[in-house]
Order: sequence, then C-alpha cells, then structure tokens
Amino acid sequence: MSLVVQKFGGTSLGDMERIARAAGHVMTALGSGHRVVVVVSAMAGETDRLVALAKAAGGDPESAEHDAIVASGEQVSAGLLALMLRDTGVPARSFHGWQVPLITDSSHSRARVLRIGPDALGACMEAGGVPVVTGFQGVTDDGRITTLGRGGSDLSAVTLAARLDAERCDIFTDVDGVFTCDPRIVAKAHKLDMITYEEMLELASQGAKVLHARSVAVAMNHRVRLQVLSSFTGAPGTMVVDEDEVVEQQVVSAIAYSKDDAKITMIGLPDRPGVAAALFGPLSDAGINVDMIVQNISPDGESTDLTFTVAESDLGQALAVLAESNRDLGASDIVPDSSVAKVSVVGVGMRSHAGVAGRMFATLADRGINIQLISTSEIKISVLIAEDYLELALRSLHSAYGLDATD
Amino acid sequence: MSLVVQKFGGTSLGDMERIARAAGHVMTALGSGHRVVVVVSAMAGETDRLVALAKAAGGDPESAEHDAIVASGEQVSAGLLALMLRDTGVPARSFHGWQVPLITDSSHSRARVLRIGPDALGACMEAGGVPVVTGFQGVTDDGRITTLGRGGSDLSAVTLAARLDAERCDIFTDVDGVFTCDPRIVAKAHKLDMITYEEMLELASQGAKVLHARSVAVAMNHRVRLQVLSSFTGAPGTMVVDEDEVVEQQVVSAIAYSKDDAKITMIGLPDRPGVAAALFGPLSDAGINVDMIVQNISPDGESTDLTFTVAESDLGQALAVLAESNRDLGASDIVPDSSVAKVSVVGVGMRSHAGVAGRMFATLADRGINIQLISTSEIKISVLIAEDYLELALRSLHSAYGLDATD
Repeated sequence: MSLVVQKFGGTSLGDMERIARAAGHVMTALGSGHRVVVVVSAMAGETDRLVALAKAAGGDPESAEHDAIVASGEQVSAGLLALMLRDTGVPARSFHGWQVPLITDSSHSRARVLRIGPDALGACMEAGGVPVVTGFQGVTDDGRITTLGRGGSDLSAVTLAARLDAERCDIFTDVDGVFTCDPRIVAKAHKLDMITYEEMLELASQGAKVLHARSVAVAMNHRVRLQVLSSFTGAPGTMVVDEDEVVEQQVVSAIAYSKDDAKITMIGLPDRPGVAAALFGPLSDAGINVDMIVQNISPDGESTDLTFTVAESDLGQALAVLAESNRDLGASDIVPDSSVAKVSVVGVGMRSHAGVAGRMFATLADRGINIQLISTSEIKISVLIAEDYLELALRSLHSAYGLDATD
Repeated sequence: MSLVVQKFGGTSLGDMERIARAAGHVMTALGSGHRVVVVVSAMAGETDRLVALAKAAGGDPESAEHDAIVASGEQVSAGLLALMLRDTGVPARSFHGWQVPLITDSSHSRARVLRIGPDALGACMEAGGVPVVTGFQGVTDDGRITTLGRGGSDLSAVTLAARLDAERCDIFTDVDGVFTCDPRIVAKAHKLDMITYEEMLELASQGAKVLHARSVAVAMNHRVRLQVLSSFTGAPGTMVVDEDEVVEQQVVSAIAYSKDDAKITMIGLPDRPGVAAALFGPLSDAGINVDMIVQNISPDGESTDLTFTVAESDLGQALAVLAESNRDLGASDIVPDSSVAKVSVVGVGMRSHAGVAGRMFATLADRGINIQLISTSEIKISVLIAEDYLELALRSLHSAYGLDATD
C-alpha cells in the first residue's frame, strides 16, 4: 500500500475547527487507500509564545533548555490532532521526536537529522494506525530534545517521507501553492501546477517563503515528490518534482524577491592580491554570509571599489568586523545601504535559452530602474535594485517573461 | 553530602518573577551545602488550559493522548526554571519524566509509579548539576507518557525523595504551612511547626487541600521528612514527621472540613442479612466510594433506615445505581442531601486521652448544631452536619480544643 506523508503548518492547526479540517484531509487520504504519516507544527503563535518565555528566563536560544521548552508546542498539536482522528474512529497516536526516534546532532535550535528509526512508525501502521509526528524536533543520542530551526517541521516531513519511501509528501499550508510571484504584489501572479526541485531550491534561497531551502534540498536529494497545497481549500496545489516530469517548460518559471539584504561598499581599497581574502575571511569567521559581490575596474591600477551584500540582520556586526579589518586595508570609506531589494528570475529553461538576462536588463532599463549588482547561476539571475522600485520591477518582469495570468 | 528535594507548585511558578524566586530558594539550599533535586508543577493555569484543549478535541481524559498533551505544561516550567538557574551560574538541567525515567503503569491520567531509575539524576548531580524534574508525569515501559492525577507533582517529589534517600522534601506552595484550621474561616487558626504523618494523612483524607493523601502516604511509608512552606516568604513551614519527633503533643492538632460530600438515606429497607452487600456492592462496582455509614436501629425488626455519604460529584451516578438495586431491595424512598459538611478533628493525642469525642458532641450541642453522622478512627472523629453551620462549628471546636492562637 502506498504511503503519503501529510504535514500541517501552524495556521492549518490554529484552532479546533482547523484541526478538524486537517483531520478531514487525513481521512480523505486514508479513504483513497493510502497509508498516512502525519507531521505537525505547533498551533499558530504557540512557538513564538514559548520562545518569548524562554527568552524572558534568560535562555540562550542555542541551549538544550530552550529546545526542551519550545518543543512542547508540537506535543500539544500532535495530541490534539490524534484525539480528533480517534474521535472519528481513526486509530491515530502521537509520536514525539524521541519516540520515533528522530536522532539529531546536538546543535540545539538548528540541529541536523542524523537518522530515523522507522520501526515504531512501521509497527503503528502495521497495526492499522496513523502516526502523528511532532515536527521541528528530534532527540540526541544521549536523550536531550533538539529543534531543527526555521522550517523544521517541513524538514521533519520531507526527511520522514524519504526514510519511509513515501509516494508523496503533502505540505498543507495557508496558500494555494507556489506562485509565479508574490500575489500580494503582482495581482496577475498565478499558481504553478508543477515546478522542478532546482527551481524551487533557487526560489526558496532567493526569498520565497512558501518552503525552506533545506527541506527542498532534502526532497531533491532523495527524489521525494513534494506537494504544496492549501489546508483550507484542499484543492490540488503545486507539485515539486524532477525536471523530466515537467512537460511544458517556461524559460522563466517564477520571480522571487528579498528585502532582507543590505549592501556595503568599500571605497578606495588598494587593488592588490590578498585584499578580498583579508576582507571576507574575517566576515566568514564571524558567521556572516556574503551573497552578491562586484568589484569595479580599477581606473588607476592602484585602488578600487568593492560592493557586496550581507543579510540585513548581520549589517551591524559586519560593519564592526570591516572597521577592524580596514585598519590594515585602508579603504577610504565604508558605505552601508539597507534600502535595497533583490529580485531573482528563476527557470530551468534558461539553460537552453539565450537572452533571458538581456530581457531582464532591458525591462528594468525601460522603467528607469538602475541595477546595482548582478549575480547569476545556471537557472537564476538576481539583481539588486533600490527598494523603492521593487513592486514596479516585479510587475514589469512578470509581464516581460509572459507569466501574467491570461484569465 | 545531604540531598534535599524541592518541589514548586503552579502558583510558585506563575510568572517570571515567581520563577526567579523559586530559583532563589534552590540557590539558598545549594549555599547551605545541600545537593538539590527540583520538582516542578506546570505554571499556574497551564494544566487547566491544556485539559480544556484536549477536551475540546474530544479527548477521553484517560487516553494516552490526553496525557501527552497535558504533560507538556511541566516541560515548559522545568525548562524555564533550569534556564533561570543557569543564568545565575547554577548548572541546572531539566529532566522530563521519560528522561529520569520515572516508570509508571499505563493507567493514563492516574498512573501509579512502578520504579525510578536513579542513574541519570545521580550522574547529573555527580557532575555538580541540579536536576529540574517535571512533576506529575512519567512514562510506561513501552514509552508512552503518563500523568499521575491530582497532587501528582507532590507525589513525584516525595517518590523521588524516597528513592534518592533525601534528607528532606520541601513542598513550596502559596501558604505558610499546615494550619490548625482553614485561616480563611477561623481567624485564630495558626501554623503548626510540626505534625505527624498519621495526622497529616487524616487531614488530607478529610478535606485539607495543602497536601494530597497519596503523597503523605508515600512519605509515611518511606519516612521522608516533608516540609510544607511558602515560596513567597521562604520562612520555615510545617514539618511532617514521625510521631516520636513531636515533643509536645496536643490532643487535637488540627480540624479539617469538606463540603464535597453528599448524604443519601434509604428509608424502609428490609432489615435482613445481605442487604448492605446488595446495596454497596453495585456502588463499589461503579467506582463510587462510600464514606460514612450509619444504620438505624430497626424499631419493628422488619425494616430500617440506612444513611451514608458519597462524594458530591458521584451523587447522580450513585442515585442511578441505587434506583437499579432498589428494584430488588424495596426501600420505600431514597433521599439525597447535598447541603452537608463534614468536620473532622484529628490528633494522635486521642490515643491516650479520653473525652475527645464527648467534648466535640457537647460543643456542637451547645451551639444547637445537630450531628447527622459520626465516624471515627484511632486519631480522628468526623461528624456530618448541615452545611449552614460549618463556620460556626469550626470556630467553636477550634476554641474548645485550645487551638486558638494566643498572640
């Protein structure tokens, strides 16, 4: 019998009515002849409440106690969904991370899954039961509770689906699926029926919130068929699948954006070997990721300007690190700018189509939007622009790449 | 090094300030050179909230899922207290029931402790740490979470104290200790410095809320020295100890009361052998405890009246069972009465002093209070009276037995 993993996010479990609706989706899948493993997030708002409590108690977010506190949220939602299912005659039972067990390393608040013991879930299903697993959490080999960080429940679901050879992993959420662009900004955006792992991974990495990159990467590596769909409508969502399953490919499938970046320009850096290492080494040591980088041509052969982006939340720390490094480097000025946005067009069709970047640059130029930085991968082009132009840029590009809904 | 178990109730952990105060009590004990094991209840109100959620999801309170949900409350408070202690440099860590492990049977919502593995707590303390154990909960041999029922956190604390050979088990709560009577009713009631296990067990059984009878019984059986004290003042509370430790014994140590009883009178029952069994057998089968019983003298040798009490919460079910039994028994009427209260005077001194019962009856008669039922044990006399006279009865008896505070 085929197995489906169903994961329900916090908004899909926000109150009793919503939990009942989630139970309905489980029963539909059972009615279709599937075995089902359920993975749950905490009820909406609950994790934030617990994090605030732990913080008020002076808790380092990376401590074992923080995780033990925060992990209680999924215990409650798993129990409630199991009770609702039992109430309708489905022999469900909750499994906490340690009961599965889902073994992780001991990096609290961002633990990595090491392995999953499939026996307990298998025995439950053999006996006709439906396991309801607490997402977001695991346990170390020496029995401490861990959490997996942002997007952790999706990661639990995908990892379980891979381990159990599930036919599909359904991610139930509060949107209808993956859209060509954020419909709150681009009214003509439409839901995609299918998207490839590679595209979804790029979109998630470039700011799309619907799935986290970690979960997509695990799904891609293990070829887990992911579906993102709405728990409110239950209508078919977006399938995230292998490239060869997508019949008709667009050159550009979707457009992502991020307002969480900040730009830093080092002015008048000496133009000699070793400068980049002296600049980026200390940032890396401080745990700060640098994303886009451009170095200007050196007009006099002696000094140059270097521009790059970091996460906006890292900006303060990055400037402190750079000020320290600059004692030796001698740039004449360090100029930060948080009023920037990154726009990324993504599509596997780029591999076989020329002119995608050209159309992007021409479209933005037509609207008078200056491009500050560019970075590309095989299936993605990202540009950094002034944040004020973000909505205009997204709508213009959405039209230019033929993504506007036709109905 | 001597070991102290410190248990904090829900009101003692109601907010961050109170949790900080609890942490202070732990540090005081550490500063006195004790090793400390902490046991916590859920934050005030939290268990009620979780029970309501489980109930809304259709959960049978005796189900495994109910327990898995409700047990999350202590996880949070244990983590928060551990974080607060760590924040002040004390290497504390939380232990959930399954991490101790505290093994119970599988009677969910009222599980019995089977055994405790002392190794994990011992290792924590060997390394200089302070274990903060979630009260109220355990785990079955096959890894399901259980809860211990009312007073469960006290029971966890006392059981751990017994297992670990603790020098003392401190029950921190929101009152100063065990009083001669409820000070909200009897203004002249005063805190007792000491009380014997036997007296405390009777008081708890007869309605005193400060400790549950189960916990006192375990403490008595294992000779665990219990202290009930306030987490707000930190002043010495009441020690519950062996009889030979109490130097100066009062004839009556304290007076308890209960408004949770209901009286049932069976009128015109046939006075023949087997009637009591036919009456009380079905009640017992239905899980209904009968407390006080009195059978009137049969004036005609043919029929009699039988009066007894049950818990008020069982009254409806009891009447249904009795109506069924009465088809064969043929009592002419079954009269329930919920407007009753039970008053119990308790003291080990009764063993060696005559006249205690006589003083009780005389005192109540002087105030015109009619005694409906009487039951006695070696160290206790209980009477059932009309509920309207409860306060008057308590104040009168408190004076009559010389318990009024002299300052």
